[in-house]
Amino acid sequence: MPHISEKGVQMPASPIRKLTPYADQAKKEGKKVYHLNIGQPDIATPEVMLNAIKNIDFNVWAYTASEGTLSYRTKLTEYYNKLGYNITPEDILVTLGGSEAITIAMQTCVNEGDEIIIPEPFYANYNGFACMSNVVVKPILSYIENGFALPAIEEFEKLITAKTKAIIICNPNNPTGYLYSKEELDELKQLCLKYDLFLFSDEAYREFCYDGREFISPMHLDGLDENVVVLDTVSKRYSACGARLGCMITKNKEVIKSALKFAQARLSPGLVEQIAGTAAVDTPDSYFEEVNKEYTLRRDTLVSRLNAIEGVFCPNPGGAFYVVAKFPIDDADAFCQWMLESFDHNGETVMMAPATGFYSSPGSGKNEVRMAYVLNTEDLNKSMDCLTIALQQYPGRTV
Amino acid sequence: MPHISEKGVQMPASPIRKLTPYADQAKKEGKKVYHLNIGQPDIATPEVMLNAIKNIDFNVWAYTASEGTLSYRTKLTEYYNKLGYNITPEDILVTLGGSEAITIAMQTCVNEGDEIIIPEPFYANYNGFACMSNVVVKPILSYIENGFALPAIEEFEKLITAKTKAIIICNPNNPTGYLYSKEELDELKQLCLKYDLFLFSDEAYREFCYDGREFISPMHLDGLDENVVVLDTVSKRYSACGARLGCMITKNKEVIKSALKFAQARLSPGLVEQIAGTAAVDTPDSYFEEVNKEYTLRRDTLVSRLNAIEGVFCPNPGGAFYVVAKFPIDDADAFCQWMLESFDHNGETVMMAPATGFYSSPGSGKNEVRMAYVLNTEDLNKSMDCLTIALQQYPGRTV
Repeated sequence: MPHISEKGVQMPASPIRKLTPYADQAKKEGKKVYHLNIGQPDIATPEVMLNAIKNIDFNVWAYTASEGTLSYRTKLTEYYNKLGYNITPEDILVTLGGSEAITIAMQTCVNEGDEIIIPEPFYANYNGFACMSNVVVKPILSYIENGFALPAIEEFEKLITAKTKAIIICNPNNPTGYLYSKEELDELKQLCLKYDLFLFSDEAYREFCYDGREFISPMHLDGLDENVVVLDTVSKRYSACGARLGCMITKNKEVIKSALKFAQARLSPGLVEQIAGTAAVDTPDSYFEEVNKEYTLRRDTLVSRLNAIEGVFCPNPGGAFYVVAKFPIDDADAFCQWMLESFDHNGETVMMAPATGFYSSPGSGKNEVRMAYVLNTEDLNKSMDCLTIALQQYPGRTV
Repeated sequence: MPHISEKGVQMPASPIRKLTPYADQAKKEGKKVYHLNIGQPDIATPEVMLNAIKNIDFNVWAYTASEGTLSYRTKLTEYYNKLGYNITPEDILVTLGGSEAITIAMQTCVNEGDEIIIPEPFYANYNGFACMSNVVVKPILSYIENGFALPAIEEFEKLITAKTKAIIICNPNNPTGYLYSKEELDELKQLCLKYDLFLFSDEAYREFCYDGREFISPMHLDGLDENVVVLDTVSKRYSACGARLGCMITKNKEVIKSALKFAQARLSPGLVEQIAGTAAVDTPDSYFEEVNKEYTLRRDTLVSRLNAIEGVFCPNPGGAFYVVAKFPIDDADAFCQWMLESFDHNGETVMMAPATGFYSSPGSGKNEVRMAYVLNTEDLNKSMDCLTIALQQYPGRTV
């Protein structure tokens, strides 16, 4: 019998999904499980987008150009240029989800064995994509005490070697919700220029900034055109995670030309998605205003409930729809599993993602948990009722 | 300015699409271009599939399970088990197009630096996927004289080393249209068992078998369960190339379990596609009967017109919708470019794919061209009118 490859063995399992068997078992036992583990919003997809699907009028569900249809890329420039990105359709490569944008950017820009610096905790699947491309992730620790702000630039410089090729930031951040400031981005810009590094800017949560704070992209910074590669997706912006429609944006002509060869190998992004994505650009502002109001309420509810629990600390993040909180526990993996396996409060429990899966430095995040506030406030309150009692009962409680 | 990776340089451009700028220029000059270069059928997608899109009734375009929805995988077993594959939903991983099935299979099963044997000419993008995964392609020459039948097993054995991990067959074949016989597959089975090799079976064109010939899959062979990995797509079956919906099928539990980790990294296949794909399984037999009749007519038209041209030889393939023909020319790349750049017949010309791009042995296929018979017979006849005259006028004609 032939066996799988070394990479097939090494490839990390998803930390967000790895407790799923325990959640399934809990449900089988009749427990209600609140899912705070995964970034699947309950927010409705904009009607303009759903209507575009219902109104398709083609007879042949055909390939599109590998880089995406010109009409979709043109419409996208309308969206991005309103944000001040100042791009043309030629700067955009349409991808099968934000995931493919990450894969193609890594393969196009980073040699095997070369290094990418990523502030941790970070989006866990970066590890998987790096593994697929033989890229080495160099984590740089950010701290819950200052809300996971950008680590000091001196710390980045300590990590830079001849093999350093890129920095990835996710802004606003998954899993911490941290929103990078103009000053922090300016520091990154100087660093990238000084050491000739790519700056991959994962902007999946761009739309989700709270308390009137402004989203700043590296695309807004002068003199960084050759270094910036934006990784984007419609998944969170339009609550359309199942669309698998993203894009890569860069003004670096060498990068976009090479990326197209990777895109040609897989032929085409989805046609229906591009039709829906084109329509989505006309989503009314009121949609985003309502969504923002709802998420602000949820964040406020979750953060205040968490900080009211003895021994828990949760920073108040500026964006995205995640928080990372510190619990008075010995081991987040054991705790999250225990919540599903051995705990219930009136037949209810909560599924969360242990933060360990978002760190690549061993031992980090052992008492931290990521929660996605993708449920309504009533369910969030019920989740926090469960959590409050669970933290009292958990045998591995530390303080 | 940071530069692209070595892989970004090495990655091959698509041989099917590389002449596109010349075709665009020809069109600008007012020429009508018949596209025989690409496998984009003009056949209508089944109504049940298009109606499923129009009738979507979800409000949130959500992620599905990384392996695909249970309902789609269950419905797929209905389709495959009618063919006698005898599989369960657990044997299926739903992918973003057949392309992703190939990528995941390679990464899961083949170590970097290990070798895959592929009869050539072969589907050109295998080269791109191999490059992405650092897998070494070992081509084994098949010959136009016998219609590109499976090379002798002794020839395979000559290529086998300690690094050989898999064989890929595409059946019916793209680009040759050759349909492998039960005897040929039995020989491959013995070889894979003897040397413990995976047999990747790319069955994108399964539905397209002519003259009453039967399609045989390695899935039909006893004792090969641990070796066979089927790579499939709805693209050609339902003329739904733009759906980006495929799957990987294997009864090898180790492979499917590891493949799921790669699938988890990219989160989910498309939701709308899986809804449409579920509906597509109920496409009436009459659809396939009509399509088959149409393609048989096209093949017969194309093959007889080609063989009527002096100095041209084209085998009569048993399946798919491609032919590879031998022309009395010095260089297929030069000829195909000349057809677009310097030739027209009453303002019309033909775009074809030079077969060189489908070989990885240097110098092979220099006088061969691939044509996809995805146009109606009237257009095919006009294309052949052009080609007949072009071959008379081409300065690089050899005989």
